[in-house]
Parts: sequence; C-alpha cells; structure tokens
Amino acid sequence: MGGDHAPGAVVAGAAEAVRDLGLPLRVLLVGDEPRIRSELAKQGALPAGTIEVRHATEVVEMGEHPGQALRQKKDSSIRVCFDLLAKGEADAMVSAGNSGAVMAGAVLVVGRLEGVERPAIAALIPSLGGKTLLLDAGANTDCKAVHLVQFALMGEVYMRRMLGVERPRIAVLANGEEATKGTELTREAAEALSRAAGVRFSGYAEGKDILGGEVDVVVTDGFTGNVVLKAIEGCAQAMIELLRRSVGSSLAATAGMALARPALRRFKATIDWDEHGGAPLIGVDGVGIIAHGRSGPKAIRNAIRVAAEAAAVGMGPELSRAAQLGRDLCGRPAKGKAGRGAAGAEGNGGEGKGVGGRRSAEEDAPAPTDSRRH
Amino acid sequence: MGGDHAPGAVVAGAAEAVRDLGLPLRVLLVGDEPRIRSELAKQGALPAGTIEVRHATEVVEMGEHPGQALRQKKDSSIRVCFDLLAKGEADAMVSAGNSGAVMAGAVLVVGRLEGVERPAIAALIPSLGGKTLLLDAGANTDCKAVHLVQFALMGEVYMRRMLGVERPRIAVLANGEEATKGTELTREAAEALSRAAGVRFSGYAEGKDILGGEVDVVVTDGFTGNVVLKAIEGCAQAMIELLRRSVGSSLAATAGMALARPALRRFKATIDWDEHGGAPLIGVDGVGIIAHGRSGPKAIRNAIRVAAEAAAVGMGPELSRAAQLGRDLCGRPAKGKAGRGAAGAEGNGGEGKGVGGRRSAEEDAPAPTDSRRH
Repeated sequence: MGGDHAPGAVVAGAAEAVRDLGLPLRVLLVGDEPRIRSELAKQGALPAGTIEVRHATEVVEMGEHPGQALRQKKDSSIRVCFDLLAKGEADAMVSAGNSGAVMAGAVLVVGRLEGVERPAIAALIPSLGGKTLLLDAGANTDCKAVHLVQFALMGEVYMRRMLGVERPRIAVLANGEEATKGTELTREAAEALSRAAGVRFSGYAEGKDILGGEVDVVVTDGFTGNVVLKAIEGCAQAMIELLRRSVGSSLAATAGMALARPALRRFKATIDWDEHGGAPLIGVDGVGIIAHGRSGPKAIRNAIRVAAEAAAVGMGPELSRAAQLGRDLCGRPAKGKAGRGAAGAEGNGGEGKGVGGRRSAEEDAPAPTDSRRH
Repeated sequence: MGGDHAPGAVVAGAAEAVRDLGLPLRVLLVGDEPRIRSELAKQGALPAGTIEVRHATEVVEMGEHPGQALRQKKDSSIRVCFDLLAKGEADAMVSAGNSGAVMAGAVLVVGRLEGVERPAIAALIPSLGGKTLLLDAGANTDCKAVHLVQFALMGEVYMRRMLGVERPRIAVLANGEEATKGTELTREAAEALSRAAGVRFSGYAEGKDILGGEVDVVVTDGFTGNVVLKAIEGCAQAMIELLRRSVGSSLAATAGMALARPALRRFKATIDWDEHGGAPLIGVDGVGIIAHGRSGPKAIRNAIRVAAEAAAVGMGPELSRAAQLGRDLCGRPAKGKAGRGAAGAEGNGGEGKGVGGRRSAEEDAPAPTDSRRH
C-alpha cells in the first residue's frame, strides 16, 4: 500500500518479478485485498502459486509518526509484513511506504541483529567504478562514532557478499581528505576504523568520491547521508533535463541525438535508480528493503530481486560479527542480543561525543519493554 | 601563488580579465615577482596600466594550519592581499589557494562586518531555475542557529543585489520537507526565519532542491555544505564521463554526438563551475573571492569579474543590517562592530544548542586581542 503509485505499481512490479526474474519466488502482497485483486486482474496470467494476497485493513500514511503508527495500527500493511517476517512466514519484506515506519517496524517487530546498536539504510549508488554503498542514508539523524564504525563494517560485509567485491574499500565522509578535517564524530570513527584488522580503510572520502569509483563503502550520519543522496539524485535528474533542453533547441543536435539514442539508453540505465532496486535496512534480524516512494513497477521488481538475493545469501551471522568488531574497536562491551524495541534506549543516552542535537528515526521506537525476544 | 596551476593559470586569467571583460579593471598580482613576470611575458601585449605586480616572498601551502600560517607568514601572498584590502589599496581579493587561510586572513586582517557572527563561503550552483546560492560551503564546520539565520539573510541580499533576483526564496537544508525533520539546529534556524518579516522563507529544502530551481538560497552548516557541494560537483563530472563512455562505444552514436556537439557545449557551459567564478566570502568587511584549487585561466577571469562586480555593488551596509536582523530573530543582543580577530571567541562559547563537536575554520583565527579595530 506504500508509495506514490500504490497499489498499482507495487502489484505490477510483483507480477513482473514472478514472471521475469527467473527466481523461485513466492510474493505475498499485503494490503487492501479487493484493491489488490483488482490490480492483479490487470496483470494477465501469472505462474501458478507465485502470488498470494494477505488482507490488511490499515495503512500507515506518509505524514504519520512512525513509531506511534506502528504501535497503534497493528493491522497496517507494514506492520503485517514484519509480523510475517517475525513468524518466519516470509523471508524478506519490501515497502515503498513511510520509510520511518519501515525502520520502526524493523526494530519493533523483528529486532536488531546481535551486537548491532543501530540499523542503517544502505543506498547503492552507481559510480564510475561500479557501485558505491552509502550508509546511513537516513535512518539515524543523530549518530555516534560506534554507529559509523558498525555501518562501515556491516557495509563491507554487504559489498563482499551481495556485490562480490573481494576486498571493499571503506571511507568516512568528510569535508576534506586530510585527517585534521571533519568533526569530532568523523575523526573518532576514522581512528577506530584505522585499527580494524583485515579491513581496507581509505580514511576520509569527500562528496565527489561517492561517484568517483575509488571507494566501495562510504559511511556518514543519516542527516548528511540523506541530504547527499538526494543531492546526487537531484543532480542526475537536473543534468538529464539540461541535456534535453540543450539538444532540443537545435534541429541538427536532435537528429544527432536520435542516432545516439541506444547509447544514451545504456547511459540512462547506468544512472537509473530504478535499476538498482531498493535500499536494504542493514543490521535488522531479517531482510527489509526500502523502495523509493516514486517507485514504478520496474523499481519494485528490482527491489524484490534484491530482497530475494539477500534472503538467499543469509548475511545475518556475518553482519553480527562485524557489528561486534565495531563495538570492540570503540571500546564498548558486548551486550548480547539487542532484541526488539530496545534500540534508541541505549543509543540516546548522551554519553557519546558525536554530533549533538540530532534526532533519530529510532527514537520513534518504543522504550524497552518485556517484548524483548530474549 | 595559490591553486594547482599557479602562478601560470592565475596570471593568464588576470590577463584575460583585463583584456576581455570590458571592465575598468586594475589587477595587482601578488607573489613571487620573477615568476609572475615570466608568466606575464607569455601573455603578449596588455592594455597599459592594467596589471601591476606586488612582490611577496612567502606562500601559504595547502597543508598548512591556516591561522598559524597567516600569523607567521606576514609576507605570504594571501596575507599581503588582505593587507592591501585593509589599507584600501585594493577593492577586492581573489585567491585559488588554501581556502582556510583565505578565511583566516579575512577575519584576522580585514575583520567581519558589523553584526556578523561568522562569515560564510557562498557557492553559486547552476540549477534548472537559474542559480542557487549554497552557504556555508565550508568555512564553519560547527554552526549554531544564529549563524544559519545570518547566512540566510546575507545570502538573500547577495542574490538580490548581485544576481538581480527580486525576492529570493530562502530554505534550510534538511533530510525531509516536513517541519518535524532535521536537527535541533535546523529546526531552531527555520523557526527564527519563519518570523523574519519581508523575507520569502520556504521552510526546509532537500538535497534535490538545490538544483531543482524552486529556491534561491539554501543554508546549512559548513560540514554538510562542503560535502553536498563536492557531491554535486562529482556527480556532474561522473555523468559527463558516463555519457562519454556510453557514446564512445557506438560508431553511430559517435556520429550523432558530433552533430549534437554545439548543443552539448552549451550544456557543458551551464554546468561548468568555471563559468560561474569563485565563491564569495560573505560577511567580511571587504570583498574576498575563493576560486577553486583546480582553477584554470577562465575560472580566474570569472572570479575577477565577480570580485569587481561585488566591489562595485557595495553590499556591506545591507549585509550588516541583514546580520543584525538575524541576531534579533535569534534573541541575541547587538554587540557593535565585531572587528578583526574576534571571530571564534564568542562563536565557540558552547552556550548555543547547535550541532556539537564540529570544528570551525575560524578556530584557526587567533583569540581576541587588542588588534580589534574598535
């Protein structure tokens, strides 16, 4: 039920996924059953048994407070998805809806992986060298050094296991390459990462390095990550529009561009976010993929592909070990399984030295209760 | 003497400026006189009396501590430029050198405008609507709300007086459009700006809005501003490279692009930073323009043009009133002329609620001494 074009685009994307991806998929569509069935009817024949519908009576709207909505709307499509994940009736979930609510649902219902202090949204960005993983892309407005260090080490696992990058290069995003640049937060995180054995740490990366292809994993706080991700997205859109305007004003150029069209289509595919699927939530005990709110069928299909691949790869134990290494590097004691609903409580104690005054999506999660898994 | 291609590119740019801009310019080239003269000799005949050379024996290197370098190297080219500005022997200065040193020199030698707490680097970015002014683009890693509010109101003056935008639209950069998004810093700044009479405040802007053309002035702290500016720069470069690669792999496309070349040249000019001149230091008592370290002759020529225009327009008193309005909106008492070398002292007192733990370029400036102008 989430996203600007739901449920039509989501249903169409699911149909494309089971028809075209060549994966042994079963997709559960969660939401308003009559509307979903009506959209499904437009899709023609689909392979038998590949799509089921689970009715959910409620929807988390875009403007709603994520934590409250997740607690109160127990029959919302996002909440039901996570319940299916927690009960083992689904292996992964995809949503193009309220990303704060997806984040809150992940922490509240399925919980964090052991050792993980904060899950992050990881955005895969096309670059001159292939792809760069930027995290956190918006889950945690306020971060401490240990969070950035965990993001870096978990991102390393993701690039290795999901993208096949043998020895991913890691960097901390800052306002200059010199170690004296950055903030107390970035300097502390960089210092800890420089002590991580067996990890290729490149020091600071600047904004231009995200697309430069010289680094594979770039970590930052969720405020900066979100702003930068959207700036890059906006830049790509603006350049395509400027190119269109420049060319459109000349007849010869228009003719020339017509000849160049197949090459330009390949070019567009390289920078097309829809081609890369959604952004995984890294650090939660289950696979959750956040698709763009503007997702069309192709974006949903690709998000489903990423979700299926991540579930098949099964990175949980390795991500958990990476998070624990991050804790060790920052001198924080192991605390065992973090469990459901516990995030935010220890994360907001204010004892850290990171950037202050920022608000975390996880503050929307409830305080720790007896709903902990262990 | 500053920049990757100094002094050759700087001298060539100055020659272009006096030859091609059609402005009544006199350029003082400050630095190693023999090297400058040797570069000048390559430029052919120039209009009589348009270029002079002032010898300076020292150079601030890129890796140097800005404040220390400015204090110790009294005969460095940057320092001498600011001394000329302070003595009224120059109306504006341009440098492609160590931008931290330019910032420190501005605060130390010419001082801030009355009422201004922190000068900012303002970057003019081409957008779908014309140009967007992003500030702070890197001068102040650590900011408080009153700084952002002053940046916004000074940026408004700049866009109105320099770019002729009648009623500039102002926004605060954040990780979402809703007022509940952002950090304590951005929320406090946005709240103050929403109370500013006679100013078009649009609330929050997201990263994509910088190039979207729906807003004229976007304010943020210098850490985020620097990262975002370089990300946009890197994105534009990467897209041009990707376009080149896509097209280069097809003979038909190459032929097509040859026909489209004049239109693509117009396109490149739109996004070419060199066309837009350097980034002004806003809030100092004099005109200082920071050119990109990679500046070629064209970029230097355009930075000189911007410097000459800013000196002719004379925005000082209006910028000062804007800064004072910013102080009033944030409930801070007037303190009169800030003077030289005073920045950083009150700016780092820790009484604010902004983002903590960030380091300011101005901390490199010396502590307040009797060198204050008043």
